[in-house]
Amino acid sequence: MELPSAFDRYRAEIDAEVRSALATYTSPLYAMLRYHLGWIDAQGRPLNGSAGKALRPTLCLLACEALGDGYAQALPAAAAIELVHNFSLIHDDVQDDDRERRHRPTVWAIWGKPQAINAGTAMRVVANLTLLRLGEHGVPVEVQLEAQRLLDESCLRLIEGQYLDISFEERLDVGVSEYLQMIGLKTGALIGCALEMGALLGGAGAPTVEAFRNLGRNLGLAFQIRDDILGIWGEQEKTGKPVGSDIRRKKKSLPIVYALERTQGEARATLVDIYRRDEIDDGALATVLDLLDGLRARDEAQALACAYCGRALAEMDHAALSPWAQQSLEEMANFLAQRDF
Amino acid sequence: MELPSAFDRYRAEIDAEVRSALATYTSPLYAMLRYHLGWIDAQGRPLNGSAGKALRPTLCLLACEALGDGYAQALPAAAAIELVHNFSLIHDDVQDDDRERRHRPTVWAIWGKPQAINAGTAMRVVANLTLLRLGEHGVPVEVQLEAQRLLDESCLRLIEGQYLDISFEERLDVGVSEYLQMIGLKTGALIGCALEMGALLGGAGAPTVEAFRNLGRNLGLAFQIRDDILGIWGEQEKTGKPVGSDIRRKKKSLPIVYALERTQGEARATLVDIYRRDEIDDGALATVLDLLDGLRARDEAQALACAYCGRALAEMDHAALSPWAQQSLEEMANFLAQRDF
Repeated sequence: MELPSAFDRYRAEIDAEVRSALATYTSPLYAMLRYHLGWIDAQGRPLNGSAGKALRPTLCLLACEALGDGYAQALPAAAAIELVHNFSLIHDDVQDDDRERRHRPTVWAIWGKPQAINAGTAMRVVANLTLLRLGEHGVPVEVQLEAQRLLDESCLRLIEGQYLDISFEERLDVGVSEYLQMIGLKTGALIGCALEMGALLGGAGAPTVEAFRNLGRNLGLAFQIRDDILGIWGEQEKTGKPVGSDIRRKKKSLPIVYALERTQGEARATLVDIYRRDEIDDGALATVLDLLDGLRARDEAQALACAYCGRALAEMDHAALSPWAQQSLEEMANFLAQRDF
Repeated sequence: MELPSAFDRYRAEIDAEVRSALATYTSPLYAMLRYHLGWIDAQGRPLNGSAGKALRPTLCLLACEALGDGYAQALPAAAAIELVHNFSLIHDDVQDDDRERRHRPTVWAIWGKPQAINAGTAMRVVANLTLLRLGEHGVPVEVQLEAQRLLDESCLRLIEGQYLDISFEERLDVGVSEYLQMIGLKTGALIGCALEMGALLGGAGAPTVEAFRNLGRNLGLAFQIRDDILGIWGEQEKTGKPVGSDIRRKKKSLPIVYALERTQGEARATLVDIYRRDEIDDGALATVLDLLDGLRARDEAQALACAYCGRALAEMDHAALSPWAQQSLEEMANFLAQRDF
């Protein structure tokens, strides 16, 4: 499965805009941000690393171009959304005690948790300041204020989702509907924001802006569910993670939540017993994988990802899109729900 | 020393505005914010507690009223600044491992550090959303955007200061000038923001807005230095902390930084030795207090607090203030530099 062309279309400009957003900050505090974004190593030496797919800013620019006249005016918003996403990753690693991300030590693993908290919060604030650059592109002040509200409200939902996710860690009675509510907040809100923001800055009217928000939220759910599938059954050479890695980490991802909800009797007791252990060894991992196979949990999860993808695409009927825009968004939606990396 | 009347003048309205800013949020995430603000206990039961002096919002409203026609339009900004201050306290407690604040367990001591990080960041985002309420008071959109920029830039300086403060922990060679730079960021920036924001929303012209920013920054330095003095020599019944508490916690507050910079030979070796220990016992505490006495460190620090207070008051010459405004600001400045609680 190939990466949709939209990623290549905007990549260089997104990268330039994010770099420019951080260019004027000189305190050593910001070295942690540049390190996290893959621009420098821990000693401050420049790297040619990649900072991930830049999914959210790509979606933002695609939505803007699909509905408006070009996309340059949305670049500050795309960069701001990417910064909010990265703020959440820095704090996430602190909260989850994760020492590695994208094959590199996490910020806290190098600078310690107190400073990593500062790095994440600073990234969050730089995002808002970056959004103020919309004025340089002639975006009207009323729209700028609307964009600030949208970014902040989406960020708050993301934090609410993170709150729920952490509160699920100690529980074995999380249901699928609760899980979907959580990822709707933690992942759906910011992806929804990306598409809504793009539509807003593309000059779309209120009904289209709302359709793009819903398009984004559904895409976000499809994306996260596919991520959960890859976290268990993904091929290591493509995802960078060994098979079953989310099970070893005892993450309450969708297939596990589904299994906990659907199993009864002995099977459920086995599963609960394994998830109460401190560590999940090879034998326990194989047991869980067998159990998921018996429940067809992978197919069930994939069907749900496809259903959300379908809902996302249905939202496009509300907007009169050009064939190019329609096709690009479809390509993106199908990729997010079916990717293997 | 009595609390200046400005605190009483605005207290009820500040409290109502901050409560209203949080009123619509229902996720259990926000219980942590309400707990931190002293409104509820850990079980969610209402409290009649006080959430501190509300210094920053009081200064914001005082600046607005001193320069404009009333202060109602500045209430959302005052509340936003108080929320930013409280975001920094929640994260500060996580970063410093402090289990108690204002005689109550800190947020992380109850809910754990991962959730306390969420609580702090959520408080930070709610601050920006609260600032958007300026529109309900008829504040022009351009001024609203300026206010957003001011709040975010001040918050970023606060985080830069917190970064420096943490980086000082491992060092015994921090000089007084570095220390002053740090508190200028960590404490001065947000107090400067409070006065600048009040002036901006009071409709003052650019030179007066700038004078009030400088007034605020100098007040912030005076306030922090006095805080450092009280952290060592304050009376327990007034400050709630035992004598020498900042020494026991090995905080690099001004008197200690001053002593480390001024002592040589045997005295410096003694001081360095004590500050390298894991714990500071009664004997070591007495030694440090004697050493500070010998250097007249308390008087030197107080002289510096008074000097910054004087600089703050000098900034008022740039604005044509009414006698009431002049007197209220003087009363506030003198209180901050000389208070004993």
